[in-house]
Amino acid sequence: MANKIFIIVTFIGVPLSVIGTLMHWSSTVLFLIYCLTIVSLASFMGRATESLAIVTGPRIGGLLNATFGNAVELIISIFALKAGLIGVVLASLTGSVLGNLLLVAGLSFFIGGLKFKRQHFNVHDATHNSALLIFAVIVAFVIPEVFTINMNESRSLSLSVGISVILIALYLAALFFKLVTHRGVYQPKVESGAEQQEEEAEWGKGKAITILLAATIAVAYVAENLVHTFEEVGQSFGWSELFIGIIIVAIVGNAAEHASAVIMAYKNKMDVAVEIAVGSTLQIAMFVAPILVLISLLFETKMPLVFSLPEMVSMAVAVLLSISIANDGETNWFEGLTLLGAYVIMGIGFYLL
Amino acid sequence: MANKIFIIVTFIGVPLSVIGTLMHWSSTVLFLIYCLTIVSLASFMGRATESLAIVTGPRIGGLLNATFGNAVELIISIFALKAGLIGVVLASLTGSVLGNLLLVAGLSFFIGGLKFKRQHFNVHDATHNSALLIFAVIVAFVIPEVFTINMNESRSLSLSVGISVILIALYLAALFFKLVTHRGVYQPKVESGAEQQEEEAEWGKGKAITILLAATIAVAYVAENLVHTFEEVGQSFGWSELFIGIIIVAIVGNAAEHASAVIMAYKNKMDVAVEIAVGSTLQIAMFVAPILVLISLLFETKMPLVFSLPEMVSMAVAVLLSISIANDGETNWFEGLTLLGAYVIMGIGFYLL
Amino acid sequence: MANKIFIIVTFIGVPLSVIGTLMHWSSTVLFLIYCLTIVSLASFMGRATESLAIVTGPRIGGLLNATFGNAVELIISIFALKAGLIGVVLASLTGSVLGNLLLVAGLSFFIGGLKFKRQHFNVHDATHNSALLIFAVIVAFVIPEVFTINMNESRSLSLSVGISVILIALYLAALFFKLVTHRGVYQPKVESGAEQQEEEAEWGKGKAITILLAATIAVAYVAENLVHTFEEVGQSFGWSELFIGIIIVAIVGNAAEHASAVIMAYKNKMDVAVEIAVGSTLQIAMFVAPILVLISLLFETKMPLVFSLPEMVSMAVAVLLSISIANDGETNWFEGLTLLGAYVIMGIGFYLL
Repeated sequence: MANKIFIIVTFIGVPLSVIGTLMHWSSTVLFLIYCLTIVSLASFMGRATESLAIVTGPRIGGLLNATFGNAVELIISIFALKAGLIGVVLASLTGSVLGNLLLVAGLSFFIGGLKFKRQHFNVHDATHNSALLIFAVIVAFVIPEVFTINMNESRSLSLSVGISVILIALYLAALFFKLVTHRGVYQPKVESGAEQQEEEAEWGKGKAITILLAATIAVAYVAENLVHTFEEVGQSFGWSELFIGIIIVAIVGNAAEHASAVIMAYKNKMDVAVEIAVGSTLQIAMFVAPILVLISLLFETKMPLVFSLPEMVSMAVAVLLSISIANDGETNWFEGLTLLGAYVIMGIGFYLL
Repeated sequence: MANKIFIIVTFIGVPLSVIGTLMHWSSTVLFLIYCLTIVSLASFMGRATESLAIVTGPRIGGLLNATFGNAVELIISIFALKAGLIGVVLASLTGSVLGNLLLVAGLSFFIGGLKFKRQHFNVHDATHNSALLIFAVIVAFVIPEVFTINMNESRSLSLSVGISVILIALYLAALFFKLVTHRGVYQPKVESGAEQQEEEAEWGKGKAITILLAATIAVAYVAENLVHTFEEVGQSFGWSELFIGIIIVAIVGNAAEHASAVIMAYKNKMDVAVEIAVGSTLQIAMFVAPILVLISLLFETKMPLVFSLPEMVSMAVAVLLSISIANDGETNWFEGLTLLGAYVIMGIGFYLL
Repeated sequence: MANKIFIIVTFIGVPLSVIGTLMHWSSTVLFLIYCLTIVSLASFMGRATESLAIVTGPRIGGLLNATFGNAVELIISIFALKAGLIGVVLASLTGSVLGNLLLVAGLSFFIGGLKFKRQHFNVHDATHNSALLIFAVIVAFVIPEVFTINMNESRSLSLSVGISVILIALYLAALFFKLVTHRGVYQPKVESGAEQQEEEAEWGKGKAITILLAATIAVAYVAENLVHTFEEVGQSFGWSELFIGIIIVAIVGNAAEHASAVIMAYKNKMDVAVEIAVGSTLQIAMFVAPILVLISLLFETKMPLVFSLPEMVSMAVAVLLSISIANDGETNWFEGLTLLGAYVIMGIGFYLL
């Protein structure tokens, strides 16, 4: 049913976006149309990527998911970089990290926990992911924050580029570890065969690639226009660029993903729900963020990997909280509520900033 | 025997407090009398609350303990707020957190550990509490610290109020989780029946309520006067308001509780000792602190939830240390000494500040 | 074979150091000679200490290892203190902490992990050490950092001295705990008898003491001269004092130790490898650093226990990362790579600073 809605929204939203853009409708209306269109297009991209991943087998599929999983966010960010909106890009990265770790995981744990008293997920994966979260957010993001305080711009950028290269290299190494050298090593043996059998590609290879391409082009068109509405929309609603990036862009870019995590939790498939939330966070922090730093070198305004202090502290604190909640491999409604509480606190903070 | 001493101190201390106040004795003498009187009155309030908790059953009893457990501290703080001593209130909150997490837990682990080689407590509770400690101290206290750096006063207060409401809501949700939806879910099955049978109320319902009311009124009277001695006592001894709040008020407000935690540890009832230390910390951070922020709105000087940097860092660091020590569900004398070492380090720091 | 190389380097390096010093060779050449000579002398001191430790039994042996294990670093630092180079001393302490936690542990896990899919070590030790790491680095180092921001010099020093005394006291208590009251309590029972039998002292008591003394004197001579080359070498290569301290001095002072940790990991003796890396970190943080603060009181320039912000944050972040990686008692090549990645990130940061 959700799929039908997305089809309708897409087939109304895309032409409406084109018409509205050409006719210079009011920014607020366009902003709304663009956002809804992107959310529905993102769901197509997600389904196409998944179909391709199943067709191409677990290794290449894992790689596909790991690189295209946040394609929408990447596309929006590239256009924002091109428009020189570095603050919005850093904010939307922050928003994605917070959104995945606190909002998505929180909703999943909470809604899943309303149905099931205790839900379990693979502890080994949680430990592995905890270390990566600390590496990415607490090491790779905090170090430039502190070291660049008295550094000139060119050195800040050198440091950012160095860290970005290491982040991407380690992200690839993590995929190699998970998909090649240690595939299945930490998984419980039973069921895995049974579960893999039920996975069947929704679309064939050709159809999936066609849809992926078409949706990507459409997203790119809408995203470019979306970026240019930020300033006016911010002024109309009294929102700062920071708030737009952290709350709006992050939610629009990840809405489809968010929904499927919650559905998985409701079906008691916590491994999948956690994998979506944490996996997506790691992808943002270890792949999308550093790629954007490197891409920004091609544009006029370069983006160093230096977040504002509130952004940095929010992310670090969110990582510590989610690790302390996830490290027993068990969840319940109250743990979900705790994560949501943290998200609301930060939301209020960024709104008032 | 301890009870007899408290009776004597109470029946000498209360009239002496009244006489001394009326006759304007020296601040230092009054300060000493007030402190001792409050400590002994607090022990009566504690016993009355516990009796009521047993009589009213586990659910309402748990709620009673959770709200009246730090009543003395709450009363002292309200009078300090009324006198505009925001710095002292924030300091005494800090002192309670540090005192419970480091001093009480440290003494319990150390003294218990001198008698028993290894002591154990419920790991599930420890994990649950760890997440709440991180939520309260590292999220809810750190966020306003960082976000308000460049914020004007009214926005700082809005943020503080928002966070306070969320803290109280989550505290109530935690009680609901513990007492209703997940009662006994994480407890080992055995013994529980046996242990609950041996609990018997010391006082009947009527007597407990009478004593609780009388002691509360007496505490309120003494506390109001105590607050006004701070300035002169500070000057006589060369103590800053900060030091008085962090070390003196915090110890006076929690002395009775502290003693019973150590006694429990000595009896190898580590679950109870840890529950007192950590439970009390959570109550301070998630209930007393936000309630005080909201109450301060009624007074002339409003209190934002913004600690000084040394206070904030000390609390955050104490949380990380105590979590890392507690997360294996086992204690020994050395772990107690480590916590005490941290308390002394911070004590020296606040003394020299 | 490694031993033969060390013998050759020692018997060429020591006379060359003397001759070069007297003939005022270029600083860069001398710097290189001094470094190599110290590395090879350090290996003799390590072997002599170990032989003595075996001869004198586990208790006194443990004490010997715990005090002489970082003798080389201590000697170099004392001469740097004497020359007033406080910045270099603090940097080399930082470098040792980072080097042990990230470089040595990282290399051990990585190289060991290339040979073995999963390697295991004692989880109880890891938990015990985690708490101490947090105590030393996150409590004892962070507190003075934050508290001294607005403190005058004499109070900063008082705080540093107080913390140093507590650190040393707790370090001795930790030895007492490990060697006396809780010896073997947390060790798995099996094998331990078998393993202890195979340990045999390389040298007799007399020979070991003679070599230890001779090597110490030689190290002292070379170290004193090494310290005076820092300024010129820094200028020639464009290295800051900070970088020399953090990367060069730390590696030279610990090279021999580093090598043996990696060899142990390659032999799948992860308990030993982790003990070297983490034990050495604790020794630096809880014994060498505070001893140097106290020794500095004898010199003209006193050293407070206040690191620069990048140093402090790097150490705190390294502790959090290594705890999150080590707390499951299992390692693999990817965990090693993660630690190495963090080391490189910090290395780049300090180079650009």
